[in-house]
Amino acid sequence: MINLRKPYLLFVGDVREGPSAKTAYGIRDWAREACLGQMRLSPHAVDLGLPDLDVATAGAKGCGSLVIGVAPVGGQIPADWNNALVEAAAAGIDIVSGMHMPLRDIAGLQEAAAASGARLIDIRVPPSGLAPASGRWRSGKRLLTVGTDCALGKKYTALALAKAMRDMGAKADFRPTGQTGIIIAGSGIPMDAVISDFISGAAECLTPDAAEDHWDVIEGQGAIHHPAYAGVTLGLLHGSQPDILVLCHEPGRRHHYAFPDYPLRSMREVARACLEAARVTNPIVRLGAVSLNTSKLNDEECRVALEEAEAELGVPAFDPMRTSLDRAVMAILG
Amino acid sequence: MINLRKPYLLFVGDVREGPSAKTAYGIRDWAREACLGQMRLSPHAVDLGLPDLDVATAGAKGCGSLVIGVAPVGGQIPADWNNALVEAAAAGIDIVSGMHMPLRDIAGLQEAAAASGARLIDIRVPPSGLAPASGRWRSGKRLLTVGTDCALGKKYTALALAKAMRDMGAKADFRPTGQTGIIIAGSGIPMDAVISDFISGAAECLTPDAAEDHWDVIEGQGAIHHPAYAGVTLGLLHGSQPDILVLCHEPGRRHHYAFPDYPLRSMREVARACLEAARVTNPIVRLGAVSLNTSKLNDEECRVALEEAEAELGVPAFDPMRTSLDRAVMAILG
Repeated sequence: MINLRKPYLLFVGDVREGPSAKTAYGIRDWAREACLGQMRLSPHAVDLGLPDLDVATAGAKGCGSLVIGVAPVGGQIPADWNNALVEAAAAGIDIVSGMHMPLRDIAGLQEAAAASGARLIDIRVPPSGLAPASGRWRSGKRLLTVGTDCALGKKYTALALAKAMRDMGAKADFRPTGQTGIIIAGSGIPMDAVISDFISGAAECLTPDAAEDHWDVIEGQGAIHHPAYAGVTLGLLHGSQPDILVLCHEPGRRHHYAFPDYPLRSMREVARACLEAARVTNPIVRLGAVSLNTSKLNDEECRVALEEAEAELGVPAFDPMRTSLDRAVMAILG
Repeated sequence: MINLRKPYLLFVGDVREGPSAKTAYGIRDWAREACLGQMRLSPHAVDLGLPDLDVATAGAKGCGSLVIGVAPVGGQIPADWNNALVEAAAAGIDIVSGMHMPLRDIAGLQEAAAASGARLIDIRVPPSGLAPASGRWRSGKRLLTVGTDCALGKKYTALALAKAMRDMGAKADFRPTGQTGIIIAGSGIPMDAVISDFISGAAECLTPDAAEDHWDVIEGQGAIHHPAYAGVTLGLLHGSQPDILVLCHEPGRRHHYAFPDYPLRSMREVARACLEAARVTNPIVRLGAVSLNTSKLNDEECRVALEEAEAELGVPAFDPMRTSLDRAVMAILG
């Protein structure tokens, strides 16, 4: 399991708005209390609305990790990024990255970290010591988000559910399986980077025995009918041993993202396939709710989509960014 | 893709009979023509019935690879293994291993190989350069063996089918996905060691475009209801794009091997689940035959088991080690 030191200094370098800044925004939105401030190397860089801090100030405020919340344009680390990262590592601040390029390949960084005791943490690298699943029954409750496709809201749904469950007085922890979620939570396992024999074992490791009234709210991955990623989805379904599935969908999406030859299955068919698979390790699993990403719909379309989803699946529907989750959480907690 | 140089010198060290010699026997039985001889370091070691060769003789006969066909007792490489392996590498013979311990950790081996140009090939290490699946339709035909469980004959079924199909005049190649199969065939991808995001992509890489009348006969892995390995099974099902599934089962097996809390599903249920999953990438997939491992049954019990399997699934049944495959191959080739 990856474990990060908070609070964070969010590093955005000289990256401007756009998809490559989504990680930084996600961390700010979902782990605001863990963010000391931001570090920008250009006046044109993304402004997250956090205090601008230099390394010395962040260090004095007890910063645990500098988190690279963006991807460098063109994939190469510019020289002025180098200097800032080396300075932070030399000050004893851990460096956390989700980039493809390993941190140790940044000139001078390994030496600076070794001298100060700071850690270089590549979030894409799975922890060592994983093993195949045991299939052993575990105490505590688990909820897993599943989807009709990738990239439509499984992470935000899990984050919003964990928060709403806590707001209603339940014990709930978000359990991330991808890099942005891991930085938000401060711990987790990147399922897409795990050796294939260990997928279910990694999910067991992520959600160990817990108090009987404690909920692990697990970020799902991929989709069970996805032509490239279904293996990860199924291994995570089995290893999670979920009591509750929450199905995520984006109304209007017709085919798997970037796979135009692969039409999406209906929500009902995906729910049936996921429940059947989940029963292998938890025979009493049930569908708890439906989460819709209605970001492309107006208010009336959103209302209709939620109504239709409830009618199709017989459980409460919500949009984690737009509507109340109360009915869904009550249905989940029973 | 891993590619090995034949012919082989099968190295058995000082290992006696038992499960750890199964790989050596499998290579001898299925790749006899690729085996120059054996190398034994003790008169008590496994005797494969092949000519005993030393490194000099094997080298003079054009040996391409020394294959470690056994696991060292206790997991540690004894010193006299070291000497033999270093001598072979120094003579320009590739060293091939399926052991957990990497070959580079054997004292002196990396230097000897570098000096002669020999390669050190750890079969458990997946090839680099893999990518997620594209889902693109490929030319040629594909058959995948699937099973009700692990370790009941999926590899031998695929080997026997590929041979029987060639014997009937069809173009067929065995495509291995595990270490023993890779050594037998001389190439392949170890699916259990691939990064989880690349499982289906690795299966695509293993079975590329081919002539329309060519069959890839693919070694299946795991089982779709297996609590630990189903992710590999599903990723392989999708990436293989199979036209034909052949279901493998061992009559009398009641639960998943080493998982006593997980009863096996019926052959019919496993076939249905595998066909449903395979239709994601190949809508015309069908069940071609059933392969039974009847090694624990007498002749009469075997006959009854095959009859019952045919009645349950409506396709020809065979035991690849015991009965003719002709009816099955005719049903597969149509």
